[in-house]
Amino acid sequence: MKVSLLLTGNELMTGDTVDSNSAYIAQSLKDINLVPFIKTVVGDDLTLLVKSIQELSAVTDVLIVNGGLGPTVDDLTAQALSMAVGSPLARNAQAFEKLDEWAQRRGFVITESNLKQAELPAVCDIIDNPKGSAVGFRCEYNGCLIMCTPGVPSELKPMVENHLLPLIRAHGAITTVSDITRIRVFGITESGLQDTVNEVFPDWPPEVDLGFRVQMPVIEVKLATLSEDARVLNETWTKKFIDHFSDYVIGYDDVRLSQALNAALMEKRLVLSTAESCTGGLIAAGITSEAGASSVFQAGYVTYSNAAKHRDLGVSLEALDEFGAVSEQVVTEMVAGALSRSGADIALAISGIAGPDGGSPDKPVGTVWMAWGEVGQIQARKFYFPTQRLAFQRTASAIAMDLVRRHVLGLPTDVDYFSELKKKR
Amino acid sequence: MKVSLLLTGNELMTGDTVDSNSAYIAQSLKDINLVPFIKTVVGDDLTLLVKSIQELSAVTDVLIVNGGLGPTVDDLTAQALSMAVGSPLARNAQAFEKLDEWAQRRGFVITESNLKQAELPAVCDIIDNPKGSAVGFRCEYNGCLIMCTPGVPSELKPMVENHLLPLIRAHGAITTVSDITRIRVFGITESGLQDTVNEVFPDWPPEVDLGFRVQMPVIEVKLATLSEDARVLNETWTKKFIDHFSDYVIGYDDVRLSQALNAALMEKRLVLSTAESCTGGLIAAGITSEAGASSVFQAGYVTYSNAAKHRDLGVSLEALDEFGAVSEQVVTEMVAGALSRSGADIALAISGIAGPDGGSPDKPVGTVWMAWGEVGQIQARKFYFPTQRLAFQRTASAIAMDLVRRHVLGLPTDVDYFSELKKKR
Repeated sequence: MKVSLLLTGNELMTGDTVDSNSAYIAQSLKDINLVPFIKTVVGDDLTLLVKSIQELSAVTDVLIVNGGLGPTVDDLTAQALSMAVGSPLARNAQAFEKLDEWAQRRGFVITESNLKQAELPAVCDIIDNPKGSAVGFRCEYNGCLIMCTPGVPSELKPMVENHLLPLIRAHGAITTVSDITRIRVFGITESGLQDTVNEVFPDWPPEVDLGFRVQMPVIEVKLATLSEDARVLNETWTKKFIDHFSDYVIGYDDVRLSQALNAALMEKRLVLSTAESCTGGLIAAGITSEAGASSVFQAGYVTYSNAAKHRDLGVSLEALDEFGAVSEQVVTEMVAGALSRSGADIALAISGIAGPDGGSPDKPVGTVWMAWGEVGQIQARKFYFPTQRLAFQRTASAIAMDLVRRHVLGLPTDVDYFSELKKKR
Repeated sequence: MKVSLLLTGNELMTGDTVDSNSAYIAQSLKDINLVPFIKTVVGDDLTLLVKSIQELSAVTDVLIVNGGLGPTVDDLTAQALSMAVGSPLARNAQAFEKLDEWAQRRGFVITESNLKQAELPAVCDIIDNPKGSAVGFRCEYNGCLIMCTPGVPSELKPMVENHLLPLIRAHGAITTVSDITRIRVFGITESGLQDTVNEVFPDWPPEVDLGFRVQMPVIEVKLATLSEDARVLNETWTKKFIDHFSDYVIGYDDVRLSQALNAALMEKRLVLSTAESCTGGLIAAGITSEAGASSVFQAGYVTYSNAAKHRDLGVSLEALDEFGAVSEQVVTEMVAGALSRSGADIALAISGIAGPDGGSPDKPVGTVWMAWGEVGQIQARKFYFPTQRLAFQRTASAIAMDLVRRHVLGLPTDVDYFSELKKKR
């Protein structure tokens, strides 16, 4: 069975946007053992879109069209499909209903531009899009299943798993037995994982396809097993994998680091408080991005200046003066302050130099101190992430959350994050 | 003049590699006012490669082939080009010389596999590759300039500037003038912009191509003008656009909302403090994600529980009790508390129901109160964003930042965010 992709959007042609959707679709197609045959990318050009739909549908069994479903004049997919398959545009009742629902939930009134999103080729059925105003749609043309999907990645992703793959399976009568497990790990790189697997599991069976995909800051590990006894084989090797990488594993499927941290806190019935300098609230925002955060988090302090560290957390002027804001002494006092001010069971503090300015020979940009613990039991560690400001903040936040997760669960906190890279150098 | 791209490599089809080369090429083509017309990506499939070269060269003036120049059996570009243009493979003397040089410099012996890299279609001239063993090569076929380039990004990049662009210029005798302006707006949707432009500027000239791109939470507006007097025309319509959308415009090019806010604070020499409940630190994290934030931000408070609002910000128990945490009274007291605790010039507070739980008939999930201002001059507004938790937090944070930006710059803060849809009723 052959699958082709057609991506549309001027921003893809100008290079203003790097296309990551097609890689996402391709990775997902692996689950049903398919690799795209041909991919075409065109701008918002009606003639070219029509021609591409016709040519690709003629040589493949499935055509996934991505992009061009928006409300503006440069969104041409429905019109192009209509012309390509010779089915006039008409108001699709289901699409209109979804659009109406979407607008009502937001208190919007549907405009002329929006209405365009409900005008679909008459032969089309809709593909539900729970995240946006534009429904997807599909039809069969000359035996080819054509599916049109939104270009916004967060809207596309749930549609791929929930609708596209099942539709392709049904269209191609794919019956292979397969079993897939997705595990998420944090603190080790893709190549570190691969090298370790090669070393520790020389007998890894070829039937269990092992794939890694970076989903910053975690890595998704996928075990895809295609064989008669897929389930048993998959379970066996999933267990071996998890046993070996144990404390790096934060969970299954789409689990986020913040979810894993909150779950650990919830399990132990602990309330955490945060005291952030260089991450400026990013850790607190991560924790509270999860539903139910109020049972594990009540108060956080963003103490960006030294004055704030002293005033809001009671960090001593002596420590700030003698050791500087980025020091073991100061982060330890920040934890103590957060504990006593908030009354939380456990606190986390972070202070570092995010750059681009503020470094010194002693403490270059990328230096960061973290501390965590309970009253009277505070630990601290120093890290060095000489990277760009945003990457520094994200990496430091992720490691800080993982340290607390490990601490709460009684796992080692002296783990050498991402150090398999250093060992190689 | 039309340019097409043909990328080859199984790793591009499986999604294991996200293609960044074509974005790089496209961005470089902008320098000579070109946007690729069509892009095709195929695996290491000889038949498909030959067909794609023939089809693309028939409809475009320049075809850039990327990838498939390596020494292994799955590198098929030279062979495919040979078949497509009907010119047999032969040892190219220049290519062999380069290869020999490359090997000698590294103390390598040229292998059979390497030799393959000097076997090129007889009609081809080489394109120098200073960084790798594979030279590029080019020929003309039916008036189309075909150029084959290596897939390794570090080898491709210097070739684009030094060889590809000059060859394309020479081939197309390029002289067109063009001008591009990028503006970023916040607080109005894509379709709202489109509808307003249609209404207010019925005489918008076709030479000034107007494009919108959602870059959450802002929208990028691009005016691309191709004509004899592109610059003047672009300036005129950019000015008209900015005059009309005035306070929605946060800046040019890649400016972020947090940058615009910090710039406004910096311009007025004001320090801001934040008091966040439902956004849990997201606003503080946004502000401090920008370099130089320390001159406009020193302390923020994440008061997620009522106890924290009372203890850390001095919100009265009476207000919490009588009006609830999500109320005008409480956010106003949060601002007052943040001002007095931090000593900042201006403060911002936010309290809402992010969901999925915690709503009531009176205050459903999505309800949010924001307050901002200086000592004795605090304003508040209520919003309703009935969407998913993360989208709620991001939207609320963005609007809160924009309200402070507007307040600081003396722009209206009673703007009806994203309501152009509602107004059309």
